[in-house]
This record gives sequence, structure tokens and C-alpha cells, in this order.
Amino acid sequence: MYNFYELIEEHVKWISEIGADPTGGTTRLLYDENWRQAQAELKEKFEALDLVTQFDEIGNLYGKLEGTKYPNETILTGSHVDTVVNGGKLDGQFGIIASYLAVKFLKEKYGAPLRNLEVISMAEEEGSRFPYAFWGSKNIWGLADKNDVIDATDANGVKFVDAMMDSGFKFKNDLAPTRDDIKAFVEIHIEQGSVLEKTGKQVGIVNSIVGQKRYSITLSGESNHAGTTPMGFRKDTVYAMSKMISEATDKAYEQGDPLVLTFGHVDVQPNTVNVVPGQVTFSMDCRHTDAKVLKEFTEEIETLFAEIAKKHGVEIIMDNWMDESPVPMSKEIVGTLEEACKEANLNYTVMHSGAGHDSQIFAVHVPTAMIFVPSIDGISHNPAENTRTEDLVEGLEALIASLYKLAYEEK
Amino acid sequence: MYNFYELIEEHVKWISEIGADPTGGTTRLLYDENWRQAQAELKEKFEALDLVTQFDEIGNLYGKLEGTKYPNETILTGSHVDTVVNGGKLDGQFGIIASYLAVKFLKEKYGAPLRNLEVISMAEEEGSRFPYAFWGSKNIWGLADKNDVIDATDANGVKFVDAMMDSGFKFKNDLAPTRDDIKAFVEIHIEQGSVLEKTGKQVGIVNSIVGQKRYSITLSGESNHAGTTPMGFRKDTVYAMSKMISEATDKAYEQGDPLVLTFGHVDVQPNTVNVVPGQVTFSMDCRHTDAKVLKEFTEEIETLFAEIAKKHGVEIIMDNWMDESPVPMSKEIVGTLEEACKEANLNYTVMHSGAGHDSQIFAVHVPTAMIFVPSIDGISHNPAENTRTEDLVEGLEALIASLYKLAYEEK
Repeated sequence: MYNFYELIEEHVKWISEIGADPTGGTTRLLYDENWRQAQAELKEKFEALDLVTQFDEIGNLYGKLEGTKYPNETILTGSHVDTVVNGGKLDGQFGIIASYLAVKFLKEKYGAPLRNLEVISMAEEEGSRFPYAFWGSKNIWGLADKNDVIDATDANGVKFVDAMMDSGFKFKNDLAPTRDDIKAFVEIHIEQGSVLEKTGKQVGIVNSIVGQKRYSITLSGESNHAGTTPMGFRKDTVYAMSKMISEATDKAYEQGDPLVLTFGHVDVQPNTVNVVPGQVTFSMDCRHTDAKVLKEFTEEIETLFAEIAKKHGVEIIMDNWMDESPVPMSKEIVGTLEEACKEANLNYTVMHSGAGHDSQIFAVHVPTAMIFVPSIDGISHNPAENTRTEDLVEGLEALIASLYKLAYEEK
Repeated sequence: MYNFYELIEEHVKWISEIGADPTGGTTRLLYDENWRQAQAELKEKFEALDLVTQFDEIGNLYGKLEGTKYPNETILTGSHVDTVVNGGKLDGQFGIIASYLAVKFLKEKYGAPLRNLEVISMAEEEGSRFPYAFWGSKNIWGLADKNDVIDATDANGVKFVDAMMDSGFKFKNDLAPTRDDIKAFVEIHIEQGSVLEKTGKQVGIVNSIVGQKRYSITLSGESNHAGTTPMGFRKDTVYAMSKMISEATDKAYEQGDPLVLTFGHVDVQPNTVNVVPGQVTFSMDCRHTDAKVLKEFTEEIETLFAEIAKKHGVEIIMDNWMDESPVPMSKEIVGTLEEACKEANLNYTVMHSGAGHDSQIFAVHVPTAMIFVPSIDGISHNPAENTRTEDLVEGLEALIASLYKLAYEEK
């Protein structure tokens, strides 16, 4: 009899200790010592399960249970093995553990599938050691340009290339063809938000990953003495910024879900109690699952900000430095997952993801969907990141039921 | 024939070179080498003019032209000799130069006055070396508590007491009586604002110094992922702050002059593009010449902020750490100055001061008024601080005419 509860707790404990730091968090960065150890120990586990196990050139780890009927069709499942600095015990790695436990259970209960069932422990997703994210998944799809990392160094000055070579890996051959056997990719991940928790659901089937636009907005007015400058003589950038943030956020509420709008970073100059602030730079992060709505909403905000700046006599520069399109998941795979959850009588809902994941790289190339489990208080990227084990079990059961349908059933 | 234009330029050049720094500014801090040199050279100038010259215990320098008829009545004029770090060439020191030149002119043209006419070069006003402002004027009126400075050190760790002793000065005898001979104090100073410039006036007769209330306001909400936290689940402190600053500043405009309201300092936590900001601390600086209006307006803002915080589900702490009452100048002296300017056909207006000055310490004890000259672009506390020499001349003429009325006329 399988005790998923104990198995999950045991495996989460095991992997989060590889790179455990004194604060109770885990730091396991691309190609570092902890990363090498985690990948090596995962490889041993895959081999012990008699999976066909291998690393690709850059360090993604695969463990394949071969299919009996469709050897050229693969159902892939997994997530990323790297963490942020001082990260939690679930982000990324729970997806690898759940995928491994799911394949183990399915193999031991049902034997070989019709299609290959393959677990992947991806090298990197967070961009937390070098300034490059999705190194693992982008390499799989021929999207990683070596020129983007060749001069990169980490916080200690170690070069990306040296770190990679020291781990025994190298750049992928640009001319090598990408895989054409992957018929579906399913990634299970913590939500990193509180929608499931607040709505009392244990499983989220992700049907879309939001697009995001990020701006850096600079207002230039005049720094003046706070006592001797009458209100009518001022070009106060914090006042103008306040109008912008206040009115734009009001509009975001009017627009409604799934739009989110965040002004998380503010830098005032000279930032002194008794000086009218002459310059401010602030960030704007806007996300939506619909590219058209995202575009129209941000255009409306850009117009609004230009009007407010003009009215307040301040100069405005709006630098839209990130513009990522929303990525819809595969309707077919989402449908399969829904069916699996329904049949298994699981406590699920269909939702979008407000954060980026490896699945957004896969979804452009192969039918992809994600499964979310709740995050307590929505906390992530932090040692306090946590999920009730019963919710992790519910997620694992959803993954098992989904992989069974995808790899063991004729369709 | 006096050429005030040349005399002023020559004297400003001379004093601003004592402590000139490589950026074109002047740094002359209480009891430092430059301060000692400036006071010593001023003393020589006072003595060369045959003024009765002396330092008091803490380092205020006096030069008295004795009156013939009322030896127990003194008309005092002057300002402070210290600068801010990397300050300009006029703040404080123009007041000393103009006072010295006025007394020199009056003595040479009219001989001895009826009342004593005394120039003062005050030791300290800015609080730029040690965390204590108005050390000069507060000592004159027995308001300086040695306990407030006894443990103070400067940026280099030098103790206040050691700096004072090394300059040959010491704490004032607490039991010594304060002077009762001062019948008027007139301080000429740069405006440090742009009211005179924008209204085309060369001289401002100050009838009031604003009161000021300063707050540090902290909002605590929840830091959440900017992508995965729907708008309805947020406790966004930057959004709440924006409502506060926007609505409060609107109210300040409605209230009208002379009220000014400034939010100059903003500190967001964690201050990251993709995190809903969970905490923000910002400053509020509010000034008005009428204590009642200042109190009522800030009470209204406090109520408004509490309401906004409640509506946004964020905690608010409002720390009102400064509460200085407005200080009216002497109606009689202001009247005398107006009369003098009118008779001399000077281009003057009556106005309030939005910044603090030594005069606010004097005004509580003796009839006091100030004369302002324009500041180009309102700039001060900066090497770019400047005033057209013809405006400095106009100010000097206003001071001369005023001192003549106060010291040479019967009343």
C-alpha cells in the first residue's frame, strides 16, 4: 500500500536538505555544488527505478520509462531543480519529486505504458545565479543563445561558461534537431499565490500563463525647498506619481480579474523630508491572460500618465522594458486533466497562472498543461514557502491520474 | 562715494573663500578651522572700524558702535557664519556682510547713532556639523541646554565639547542673565525660495516665519507576488500611499497660500518590481503662518489618512516628530522697515518666510523683523545658490534705511 503522504514528506525533506542554508531555506543554484549533488542523487533514483537515464549537453536530467506500443511518443513530466537564493522547499523541486513518485507508482502498479513516460529535472528556471532564466527549457527547444550567457558571471565573479564546464556540461550543438517525440508536457508546481487557498481548492489546472508588461517610469520636475516654494510654483513628481498610481490602480480594479497591476518599486530623488521631490522613478508591472486586453489596458495607462504628467508640468519617460505575451495551455491536455481529476473525484478548479513557468516555453512547441497545488498564504521564494501535505498528495493524485490517461490509455 | 555693488561682491568673495571646497561651494562648520578663520577675520574688520568687539562664551561675535543718547538700548543686526556642507556663498554670511557694510556706511556718513548699533556674527544656525541647530541664537536667549550637545559628535567622531574647547570657547554660564538692552533685531537673509524672483520684487520684508509639522507615516500591508495575487486579495501600501498623497495635496491646493505640503521622502519595502509592496514609510512636511490653520489642516489630513488606511486594509502609524509654532515678527519693526523702504523708494513687498531662521528665536524675546533678497531659481544649500548683485544692493539699502530709522532717529 502506497502512503503518498509519507513518501512526499520524506522526499521533500531529502531534496530540500541538498543546499539547506542556516535560515531554514534552500539555496541550490545552477551548476553549483548543491545542484550537482541533487542532480546526481536524482539520477541514482531514476536508475534504481530502471528508467533510461541521461543528461543532455547542458545538464537537464531525464529518466524514461519506455512505452510498449508507441516508442516514438513521449509524455514528459517534471520541473526545475534550481532554487532562488534562500528559497523554499517546494518551488520547482516538488514538481520533480511528484513526477518521479507518479512514474514510480504507475510503473509498479501498471507496468510499462503504451507511450514513453519520462521524468525531467530541468537544469535552471529561476535566473538566480546568472542573469538568465529558463536555461533548461529554452535549451530543449533551441531557444537559448550562447551569446546571452557567454560573458555572464555570478555574484562571485565566476563565469557562466566555467561553472558549466566544471560541472561536466557544455553548450548545446546549435544544429542538433529538437525532439519530435514529446506529445505532452505536464508540470506540477506550487501556485505561489493564494487563489486556491482562498477558494478552498486543492488542485488548480492551469489553462493559461499570463502575459506581462513591465515599465520603468521616470518623472522629472523640480527639486525645491519645501518651506519656501508656494504650491503654485511646484513641479512635484511624487504628487504626480501619486495621481498616476492612484488612478491607474482604480482602473485595474474596474477592469477586474485576471488583470493585475503593481507598482512595486519607487525611487525618489533627492528623497529628503524638506525638499519638494524633483525626480522619481517607479516600476509598473501589468499582467493579463489576454494579449489584446493587456495591450489595450497598458495603452490606456500610457495615455493617462502622459496627460497627468502634462497637467503637473513634469517630464515623463515610460520605458516598456518587458513585453511577454500570454501563453495559453493546450485545450486538449487541460481537458484530459479535468477529466482525470473529475474521475478521481479530486477537489480541483481551472485557473490561470500569474507567474512564469517552464511550461510557457514548452507550450509554444508541444501540448502542455500545468497542475497547481496551494501555497500557504501565497508565500514563495522564501524559507516560509509551504503547502499542507494533504494538498501535495491531492496534487500528486491529479498528476498520476493525468499521466495514466496520457501514457496508458489509447486516447 | 560708496559703491555698494563692488563692496558686496568683494566681501562675498572674501568670506566665501574661507572654507571654499573644490565643487565651488563653501563648507564652514561650527568650530572648525574655516569657522575660526572667518570669525577671526570678521573680528579684525570690526576692530578696524573701531567697534567694541567681543566674543561671548560660546563664540558669537559682536561689534558694537556705541550710541550717544541711549547707551542701554541696542539695535542688533546680523546672521550666522556657519554653512551647510557644500553650501553656497550667501546663506547666513550675506547677512553678516550686509550688516557690517551698513554699520560702516552709517558710521562713516552719520557718525555715532543715538542707540547702540551692533553687528552679530552668530556661531551656528544650520545644524550641519552636530545634530543641533540654532546654537548661536539659542545661547543668547538661554535656550540652549548643554545636555543636548554634551554627547554629540560630528561625522568624524569629534565631540562637540572638544571642538568647542579647541576653539577657545565653553558652555555659557546657565545663571548669567540674558541681555535686556536689545530693542530690535533685524536680520537680512536670502529668501531661499522664488517668490521675490517670480513676483519681480527685490526686497521682502518678512512679517512671519511659518510653523511646521513633520510626520513620518508608516503603512503596513502585505508583500505578495505581483503576478499570482488578484487585485481583490491585496493590501498594497503604495496604492494606499498614493491615495493619501494625491488627496492631501489636492486639499493643500484648495486651502491655498501660505499653506505648503510636501511628501519628500518615500521608502518602499521590499521595493521590487514584481512584489506587491507590503510596507512603505513616507514623510509629510506641512507649514503655515497661522498656528490654528496648521493644526486644523494637519488634523484633517490625519483623519483622511486613517480613513484611507482603513479602506485599504493597511495599518497606519503617524509619527508627528516635529511641531514648531509659527513665529510672527514684530508689527512695529515690520512697520518701520516698510516705512524705510517706501521712503527710500525701494522695490519691496511684505511676505512670510517658509524656512526657519535665527530671527524666530529672537522674535519671542525682542522686536524682530527680517529682510529677504531674491534667490535665483530659489536655489539654496547648494554651490549654485546665487542672487543678482543689484538685488543684494537693494537689500543692503533697505537694511541701511531701516537701521538708520531704528538707531539714529528719536522714533
